[in-house]
Amino acid sequence: MHIKECIVSAPGKAILHGEHAVVHGKMALAVSLNLRTYLQLQATFTGKVSINLPNINAFLSWDVTTLSHLVPESKADLENMDELDAELVRRLRHFVGVPNGTLDTRSMAVLAFLYIYISVFAGSGELPSLTVSVWSELPTGAGLGSSSAYSVCLAAALLSASGTIPSPLSDQENTARWGEVEMELINRYAFQGERIIHGNPSGVDNAVGTWGGILRYHSGKITPLSRVPMLRILLTNTKVPRSTKVLVAGVRDKMNKFPFIINPVLDSVDAISCTCEQTLSEMTSDSPTPEHYDTLEELIDINQHHLNVMGVGHPALDTLCRVTLARGLHSKLTGAGGGGCAITLLRPETEHSVVQNTVQDLRDCGYDCWETRIGAAGVQEHSPLAVKEEVLEVLACY
Amino acid sequence: MHIKECIVSAPGKAILHGEHAVVHGKMALAVSLNLRTYLQLQATFTGKVSINLPNINAFLSWDVTTLSHLVPESKADLENMDELDAELVRRLRHFVGVPNGTLDTRSMAVLAFLYIYISVFAGSGELPSLTVSVWSELPTGAGLGSSSAYSVCLAAALLSASGTIPSPLSDQENTARWGEVEMELINRYAFQGERIIHGNPSGVDNAVGTWGGILRYHSGKITPLSRVPMLRILLTNTKVPRSTKVLVAGVRDKMNKFPFIINPVLDSVDAISCTCEQTLSEMTSDSPTPEHYDTLEELIDINQHHLNVMGVGHPALDTLCRVTLARGLHSKLTGAGGGGCAITLLRPETEHSVVQNTVQDLRDCGYDCWETRIGAAGVQEHSPLAVKEEVLEVLACY
Repeated sequence: MHIKECIVSAPGKAILHGEHAVVHGKMALAVSLNLRTYLQLQATFTGKVSINLPNINAFLSWDVTTLSHLVPESKADLENMDELDAELVRRLRHFVGVPNGTLDTRSMAVLAFLYIYISVFAGSGELPSLTVSVWSELPTGAGLGSSSAYSVCLAAALLSASGTIPSPLSDQENTARWGEVEMELINRYAFQGERIIHGNPSGVDNAVGTWGGILRYHSGKITPLSRVPMLRILLTNTKVPRSTKVLVAGVRDKMNKFPFIINPVLDSVDAISCTCEQTLSEMTSDSPTPEHYDTLEELIDINQHHLNVMGVGHPALDTLCRVTLARGLHSKLTGAGGGGCAITLLRPETEHSVVQNTVQDLRDCGYDCWETRIGAAGVQEHSPLAVKEEVLEVLACY
Repeated sequence: MHIKECIVSAPGKAILHGEHAVVHGKMALAVSLNLRTYLQLQATFTGKVSINLPNINAFLSWDVTTLSHLVPESKADLENMDELDAELVRRLRHFVGVPNGTLDTRSMAVLAFLYIYISVFAGSGELPSLTVSVWSELPTGAGLGSSSAYSVCLAAALLSASGTIPSPLSDQENTARWGEVEMELINRYAFQGERIIHGNPSGVDNAVGTWGGILRYHSGKITPLSRVPMLRILLTNTKVPRSTKVLVAGVRDKMNKFPFIINPVLDSVDAISCTCEQTLSEMTSDSPTPEHYDTLEELIDINQHHLNVMGVGHPALDTLCRVTLARGLHSKLTGAGGGGCAITLLRPETEHSVVQNTVQDLRDCGYDCWETRIGAAGVQEHSPLAVKEEVLEVLACY
């Protein structure tokens, strides 16, 4: 069969407002993060399927003929995209030697790849020989959607390679996005990858990876905001390890101990998300003004205090907020908290030297720090011309 | 006339929870602070009334005969304790040369003294010759009730000197409190002093100075808690100057800008005050447990975050919280914020060395810091035997 080669990328994600509150029925704003995952898919004639994941030092290869024995005879379960084909998952786990309960990144990445690969090609009668190489600008396991960006890239590239979706690239464009129908399909396949990796994901991360921009998430319903401004931020990883499960349980304990104190705080967080959504909408319909940025900064500060009230702060995050505020910049944790990552809003007029000095200050604290943007485009296809040299070089090594 | 000499003291006050929220109809907990103001009243035969206020370097004296011309002919306005006798205030301002609008500490202290002195003795036909010396452990103008402690001391000593209220001291007791009826009277006279000094006070400060302990204040109603534990604290003055008026206006602006974000925070503060009141009540009915102190610490931390959300924090207060937390101690601002003072809870088991080190850390930041207690007794009479040597020495100098 003919395999269409391609290079695709998908963004990471961060929570702008509403982390933890979302667990208790409040809305959250999830945003795309322009730290991207790049995937190159190449046709081969080796009779092998190979995956190269240099970020996690995983390079694996299987015979196509061996893999074809794993393809389910009945496709019904596989074609039901509302849940995983449990039998295929079981076979794959056995095939790659991943016992149930294993959750390490490498095993999960391999299972997700093979599952989506087989799902996409099962209907075509034969499994193709190909090599997939993935390189991500995102740190792994930091709550920044590295797994969803990976799943989205896999879905887009494999669907494109199989001819299920057309290439959006034209002669005039070196980077292009798919249409709504294709994105729906990519998102559904990516969600299967997320299910393999996370068990019971909300679907927000893959939606952000697919559509990009900013999504409202409320009681299981995901709504992309129609038009959103692109905001410059610093993304900082304190590298303080934390357990999301323990943090979520801690918030629940605090709610149980002090319901009349904590419930209003969740209401206030909900109002922060609403006000933020409204402000972002005003920034796109009118021109962004300094007052819009003042509001965004105030919302960030207030939410950071609320997250501390919920008990998901950390001294490293306090330090981060203090260090950035000393440069006039406002920060909040993003995601689970208790360490982990934070976002710092940059204003359009924030000078390059201020950004550089802040990044240096944060690195001096021992943190990783990137200047990036939120609200960036979702999954894209690129011609090699449109991909940064260093990314191409990494991908070409394998 | 016979003048009964006496030494009295009254405590300062702090807000434990509910500052700012109280302006918007929520409850607040006001607590007595065992940094006390001491007043010695001595009979003299000089025909003069003298007041010595070494804290503010004010030493004044007037002829009794001159003052007697100021006594109103009709006592009706003077005896109406629901408001000031405006005519007497006008005469006193003219007499001591304090134009309307003057608000300096010394002028206000002198006016309050003369007003209460004349109020108490106006009915007795003659003004007595006496000297009042006041020394306070409280800093002035720091929102710690230095003026109310002063007014309460003046009221208690002058009412006692005139024979309007009896001495509570017995042969067995060197320190004693008045009964409820006498305290009501002291409080009413003290409130007149507060009206002179502050214009339109809430009455909470003089109530704390009179009754001591902990008072609930809600929509103008003041309710002393029946039994309260005495809590060890550090009281720190960051000495960052602030304007209560500007801070209160700032909170209002924030409420107007973000009603749905800020109103729930005020509800949460209200619940903090309620939970604190309940916890304190449990601590007196049962024995205090470590869990009670855990709760008090959590409430302090949460409220400090809420006060930051209201915009009444200050980097000096952030530093203070961080410095004390590094010693395992929890702090919040007390009063208007924006600098000013903070309280740090000490646990019964907090070791002396930890307290000493924390005090030193805070002094190294340039702050004033005292170890004291909240929930201490209200106005008291002391025999000279019961007063600290250094206080007696200061009072005896004049």
